[in-house]
Amino acid sequence: MLTTPWQSQPLTSPYDQGRMRQIIKDRHTLGAGHSPALRGLLTALDCPEPRAVKDLCFLTNPYAGDLVFEYMHRDFVAQPHNLRDLTEAYPSQNGFIAADLARHLDLPADNILIGNGTIELIQFFIHALGLKKILVPLPSFSTYYEVDTACTEVVPLPLDPEQGFRLTADDLVAAARQHQVDSVVWINPHNPTGTFIPKDELRAAFGQLTDMKAIFCDESFLHFVAEGADEGDGLLATSLAPSFRSPDTTLANLIVMKSLAKDYGAAGLRVGYGIMAKERKDWAMSKGFLWNSNGLAEWFYRLLGGAEFHERYLEARRRYLTGIASFSAKLTQVEGLEAYATKANFILARTTNGMSGYDLMERLLLEHSVYIRDCGTKIGLDHRYVRIAVGRQEDEDAVIAALQAALRG
Amino acid sequence: MLTTPWQSQPLTSPYDQGRMRQIIKDRHTLGAGHSPALRGLLTALDCPEPRAVKDLCFLTNPYAGDLVFEYMHRDFVAQPHNLRDLTEAYPSQNGFIAADLARHLDLPADNILIGNGTIELIQFFIHALGLKKILVPLPSFSTYYEVDTACTEVVPLPLDPEQGFRLTADDLVAAARQHQVDSVVWINPHNPTGTFIPKDELRAAFGQLTDMKAIFCDESFLHFVAEGADEGDGLLATSLAPSFRSPDTTLANLIVMKSLAKDYGAAGLRVGYGIMAKERKDWAMSKGFLWNSNGLAEWFYRLLGGAEFHERYLEARRRYLTGIASFSAKLTQVEGLEAYATKANFILARTTNGMSGYDLMERLLLEHSVYIRDCGTKIGLDHRYVRIAVGRQEDEDAVIAALQAALRG
Repeated sequence: MLTTPWQSQPLTSPYDQGRMRQIIKDRHTLGAGHSPALRGLLTALDCPEPRAVKDLCFLTNPYAGDLVFEYMHRDFVAQPHNLRDLTEAYPSQNGFIAADLARHLDLPADNILIGNGTIELIQFFIHALGLKKILVPLPSFSTYYEVDTACTEVVPLPLDPEQGFRLTADDLVAAARQHQVDSVVWINPHNPTGTFIPKDELRAAFGQLTDMKAIFCDESFLHFVAEGADEGDGLLATSLAPSFRSPDTTLANLIVMKSLAKDYGAAGLRVGYGIMAKERKDWAMSKGFLWNSNGLAEWFYRLLGGAEFHERYLEARRRYLTGIASFSAKLTQVEGLEAYATKANFILARTTNGMSGYDLMERLLLEHSVYIRDCGTKIGLDHRYVRIAVGRQEDEDAVIAALQAALRG
Repeated sequence: MLTTPWQSQPLTSPYDQGRMRQIIKDRHTLGAGHSPALRGLLTALDCPEPRAVKDLCFLTNPYAGDLVFEYMHRDFVAQPHNLRDLTEAYPSQNGFIAADLARHLDLPADNILIGNGTIELIQFFIHALGLKKILVPLPSFSTYYEVDTACTEVVPLPLDPEQGFRLTADDLVAAARQHQVDSVVWINPHNPTGTFIPKDELRAAFGQLTDMKAIFCDESFLHFVAEGADEGDGLLATSLAPSFRSPDTTLANLIVMKSLAKDYGAAGLRVGYGIMAKERKDWAMSKGFLWNSNGLAEWFYRLLGGAEFHERYLEARRRYLTGIASFSAKLTQVEGLEAYATKANFILARTTNGMSGYDLMERLLLEHSVYIRDCGTKIGLDHRYVRIAVGRQEDEDAVIAALQAALRG
């Protein structure tokens, strides 16, 4: 796609610095804890060259995005009538799409519930199961603690920065017992900390929590874990999903969530699914979900199952894994910043030079056209924190240099 | 789009007649009361020229479809990077899309809940409101009586074919009282009968049903009602939606459903919304719906608000209304068929020559490449019924001739 490497440069905007700062501030305040999407922010800034800005707030594999776009070109730009067909026709029902995906993943279709993005499923299960007390390790992806707060008490399990935010599966079980919750959430690898619990530990721990109404294990960032990448296609090497292949290993209360937005660069398609006991899927289907995929999403699910696409995706994943390792290593060398170890495609970091995460974000954007996530307002973190996504490896030196310059102040 | 008029011709397939009949039969049996989508049926028949088949099962304005596709060409085929942007980026939240749509419709954003298609909202409200007894005039769109049958008793209100399936608003109130239901459904114009109740009558009747937990008024076919088409832009002339412009006329239990699939030819985008009291919308939003639109849907909502597109859509609608009137009139002249009066973009009809609706559907498809909806399995109808959508006016004489030939047997 992009052949010339990205270059750090001041942000272009018709406004003066003071006005730009005010606009950035306003958009962050408006988002109420959610970082504003770069596109909207740059529109507000009247930025004439939005593509010159490096988006390291958004968590996506850019090589996979290139690949998906290449197939979109083939199927829609070169054959526009396909675009019309998918616009006019009703997409397939949930079960048909699940059956296709099941073949691709070698998982039973009866256990797969297709979502309109995983967020639809998270919201549904939290409220429809009537969960009363849900244990959420913090900091976390906000949907798990923002939904249905009128009926569900969120019990925070604070992760300790001095321990690198690490949590063991036993900690999770102990906290569930201590607080007498009826449900547990773990994102593996965790967002925004990048910490990870091996599947065998998780499986053993969840086996002790059979009295929970629901255990959410969110594997949306699992394709970014390098362990097991060479076993088979490596995509399920560290996943709990294969436990649903046999009734003997199926946990009745486990729901494995898998967004396809990050690994495939497809957030706008609303693609993702949950893997769960057949009884739970059937119950959910009695409440809705029949026709919840759009035509472009259905095209994408079918694309996943294509042998050529799959091979090329695995290659895009390997390339990105190399980039993640390289960028993470370089980031630990940056002065003024402490970067936490990660198994995901982002790095949580905190400033050590007195600069706030917000100021670092603002300076990087205005002076270098790099956009990162200020985590100062995230519950469980303080004003020093930022989250930096891993982008293209060919840009990493320029990004590291921009960070160094911004941190020097 | 298509400049040469469509021509009736036998269906092309590598299979012999007996095998083709079996495949058609199997697909209809598989659908369990839902007519199979033409695309899948023709794939099963290995039909090499699917575009030669006239789809009059699918209920859509083809001129509006042409128009939407023209803008897709402009925005995606001519500018592929837009396709990538909407694939990669997270779409806007429900409230932002509702605000745009509110401006376009001149309705309060607080009353608009965007759905992933209206079917998401229908399913949600029926189960989440805990409706115990729902009054459904039959025949009907099946989602209203198929959902959540374990918890909700569907009370049928049979519509009388000898009265042209007509129902008055008073009949609806009387039946609600008689059966002591807690909720009522009316599709206006009704699917599949094409019957219609003027908004003032409906408004007065619903005003007597303030004790209902929910009143669903589904206006998904309302753009096909010719009355009021010359008032302003005519789109809301016969709608109950404007009653939400003032607290004085807002009914707390009324939910106006509006799919955008039929009028705009956009079933695959999953676009539609509900209009309801603010309290009910806020309650629903506390249960989910935050990010339920996909990127292409968001593009479409923005397209709706464009002045040029809107003007051209009104023109496409006028053109289609002319075609509906013309085709309906010609259909009443066809021997062997009794066609019911319609206010929608389809005509319910029954054979009067002893042929079943299924046989008519099969013969039309095999001998003339026209696909219509057999309604023989629809609850509230018998084996004689079919539903025929209105297509392009330039094809109407060929379609009528095919019908006449098929009915002659």
